[in-house]
Amino acid sequence: MEYAVRGKVVIEADKLARSGKSIIYTNIGNPHSVGQSPLTWPRQVLSLVDLPPSAGVDHPDVLKLYPSDAVSRARELQSMMGGSGTGAYSHSQGVLGIRQDVADFCASRDGVPCDPDLIFLTNGASAGISHVLQTCVSGEDDGVMIPIPQYPIYSATLALLGGRQVGYALDEGNGWEANVSSMERSLQEAKDAGVNVRAFVLINPGNPTGQVLSKEAVGEVVKFCAKHGLVLLADEVYQENVYCEGKAFTSCKKAAADMGLLGEVEIASFHSTSKGIFGECGRRGGYMELTGFDKEVFGQIYKLASSGLCSGLPGQVMTSLMVKGPPSDGESFSSFEREKGEIFGSLKRRAQMVADGLNAIPGFTCNAAEGAMYVFPRVTMPPGAAAAAAAEGTNVDTMYALSLLRETGICVVPAAGFGQEEGRSGFRTTFLPPEETMEEAVRMFKTHHEGFVEKYK
Amino acid sequence: MEYAVRGKVVIEADKLARSGKSIIYTNIGNPHSVGQSPLTWPRQVLSLVDLPPSAGVDHPDVLKLYPSDAVSRARELQSMMGGSGTGAYSHSQGVLGIRQDVADFCASRDGVPCDPDLIFLTNGASAGISHVLQTCVSGEDDGVMIPIPQYPIYSATLALLGGRQVGYALDEGNGWEANVSSMERSLQEAKDAGVNVRAFVLINPGNPTGQVLSKEAVGEVVKFCAKHGLVLLADEVYQENVYCEGKAFTSCKKAAADMGLLGEVEIASFHSTSKGIFGECGRRGGYMELTGFDKEVFGQIYKLASSGLCSGLPGQVMTSLMVKGPPSDGESFSSFEREKGEIFGSLKRRAQMVADGLNAIPGFTCNAAEGAMYVFPRVTMPPGAAAAAAAEGTNVDTMYALSLLRETGICVVPAAGFGQEEGRSGFRTTFLPPEETMEEAVRMFKTHHEGFVEKYK
Repeated sequence: MEYAVRGKVVIEADKLARSGKSIIYTNIGNPHSVGQSPLTWPRQVLSLVDLPPSAGVDHPDVLKLYPSDAVSRARELQSMMGGSGTGAYSHSQGVLGIRQDVADFCASRDGVPCDPDLIFLTNGASAGISHVLQTCVSGEDDGVMIPIPQYPIYSATLALLGGRQVGYALDEGNGWEANVSSMERSLQEAKDAGVNVRAFVLINPGNPTGQVLSKEAVGEVVKFCAKHGLVLLADEVYQENVYCEGKAFTSCKKAAADMGLLGEVEIASFHSTSKGIFGECGRRGGYMELTGFDKEVFGQIYKLASSGLCSGLPGQVMTSLMVKGPPSDGESFSSFEREKGEIFGSLKRRAQMVADGLNAIPGFTCNAAEGAMYVFPRVTMPPGAAAAAAAEGTNVDTMYALSLLRETGICVVPAAGFGQEEGRSGFRTTFLPPEETMEEAVRMFKTHHEGFVEKYK
Repeated sequence: MEYAVRGKVVIEADKLARSGKSIIYTNIGNPHSVGQSPLTWPRQVLSLVDLPPSAGVDHPDVLKLYPSDAVSRARELQSMMGGSGTGAYSHSQGVLGIRQDVADFCASRDGVPCDPDLIFLTNGASAGISHVLQTCVSGEDDGVMIPIPQYPIYSATLALLGGRQVGYALDEGNGWEANVSSMERSLQEAKDAGVNVRAFVLINPGNPTGQVLSKEAVGEVVKFCAKHGLVLLADEVYQENVYCEGKAFTSCKKAAADMGLLGEVEIASFHSTSKGIFGECGRRGGYMELTGFDKEVFGQIYKLASSGLCSGLPGQVMTSLMVKGPPSDGESFSSFEREKGEIFGSLKRRAQMVADGLNAIPGFTCNAAEGAMYVFPRVTMPPGAAAAAAAEGTNVDTMYALSLLRETGICVVPAAGFGQEEGRSGFRTTFLPPEETMEEAVRMFKTHHEGFVEKYK
């Protein structure tokens, strides 16, 4: 099992950091670690919810530190927990009132009803993904279709479960679009090889690829899964991170509903407090919604959730705050919206600037980051690089990333860690560090690449 | 896979609760859900750590709501996180400064040095247990020795991994002691059956059995594991819950050190914020310490931890506060100690009262709860019960627990969910609800049992 975003290059970066080198971490979508500030109001509510009432919401001086709309929301959350508070295990699926908040959010987003009994509050998206994959894979003949390139939680979890990866290529020349004929071809090849294909992973907006799929493209995937009886894992954690004018996020559930396929296909949708504008990774909050699932499979997923007892309550609380912000007539609304707007505006500028900057480097080709937090440039390697990497017992991508790290302090993830077509090279970088840092990083990408090309020409 | 503490009886209890019946939940060690108050000072520190500094530690009115020793500790924790705060993923093993707090605690408890690089901060104890078992079990011939009775996380995780349970009996007639000759016998039988036994689970203080092992008894287990090359999973989450005069908790690491076996046996020790006096289950905090591990296995465990990115930061913070309380010269020290003393004193009285009360019921035999949060009485069933249960398609323990639930509202876990010797019957109950509730529960256990005996005589 490999997990590239925490792999060899990162371990080397940590070592260099301990020896005093200044590192720009662009290896992982971890916004607060590279300078993004947390939103104030959700933290105020969370902070109050954790205080025993006499030391918090009922304290005579509470309004000296907390705004009144944080106090009222904290009371509401404490009341949902029925006196148990954030120190007790909740229901295995999470606090019912918070699941209702999530259901209201999904229903309003999609215009389709949503049942809180089908929501699981999870430790980030990872825990839910792992539970669903466990029910799909019971032996080495079971396969799951994953995009190429993909996010390594899928390959790593499949490796742990002993199942098969069935890759379907995203079309880099066509904005990383998923293409039904290539999906059909991959599926047929896998079937011919004796693989029992059980599930399909769609990451939209894409990671590491940053594309935002049109409603029609999402619909094609849903139809494909319905036709072949595949469980659809809809990784929708970047749904708030859409920067491209004229594009919008469409959930798989919404696409299914619009085609009359609701209930005809098993869809597990994942969301997280770690991404979006919140960036609350350390909270390990998130949810999954199960639509159209067989009752027995649902029962298995419930048991898996039960065996971890429940997700962390602070993450559950943050999930509630993500899907339901301060009231529009409260004292925090305008500052909350201002903070969100500043973060989003800056992410959008960085998405554009980094893609443009990389495209301006001879030898780099980089699709636009329509969404998510990453770009995934293709880098033309000089002719001597492959042999040099082989001599070092590594691949070109890793050698390149290590060279970049040692020379510039920028820590990216080799593209090989996500999968890519034969002969392609490159890396994934976030655009999360502050704007001036990312501008400097783009200059360093260029300088390093020129030196690398000269060295291995 | 079954997970009895969240199984059939609990689901039925939840259903009855929704229809208005009053339920006494004694099925799970979830103290805050049944009236135990959280300790105030740790919550105050946690609450402050989550606030952005300008709204928290640096706010001019902070001392109106928070004691100064909570403010100083929150500053210390924020500084350990290096500006990233609780919203960022930490190192895969957890925040280094918090691992140092844990290492200091272990070193002081055991009188043996402890390296923070061998500590993993985990989501409760469950996540660490799962990671270690994953490295021990790679196929259906790999086995793990678990006590009979055991806590279901072990049987459930082994079932998921497709490994074999190799039970070793605890001696009920002898205070649930682990007996080396029975351990040797079980191991030999498993080897003869072709099982590759890889690991050994010791739960001390015991769950569901409540015994506290002597230093000598712990030493015997360590020697057994060293002799046979077994990884020792030391489930030590109840180490603060020792009520029996003259008994004390001994860690496996301490026992190993005293026999000169440190480094000769692989020990994974687990602890949690969920138990002890904190009872902070919802926080999902905990740690594991790996002693004497092979470097390659350590690397595998590191990868598994990385694939979940990190444990929740609020749980990491609570772990720090569990192992390092307020300073003894600060304003919160005496109230913190008083709150802890009240909770501990009450747990100790309940442990005694419940065991005595159950023993006074004809047909019940119950070992003392020397530690932990449970008793595991043996119940002599009336002659007609087995046939009635079989007719209902269930086992006697489950029928008994459902009957108890419907009649009295008390929700226990059938003993069968933990494993027990052939022909034995009973259940596990916590003694976590308030003292007057537990006294009433003991009376209801008696009344229900008399009715049950009459019905199935």
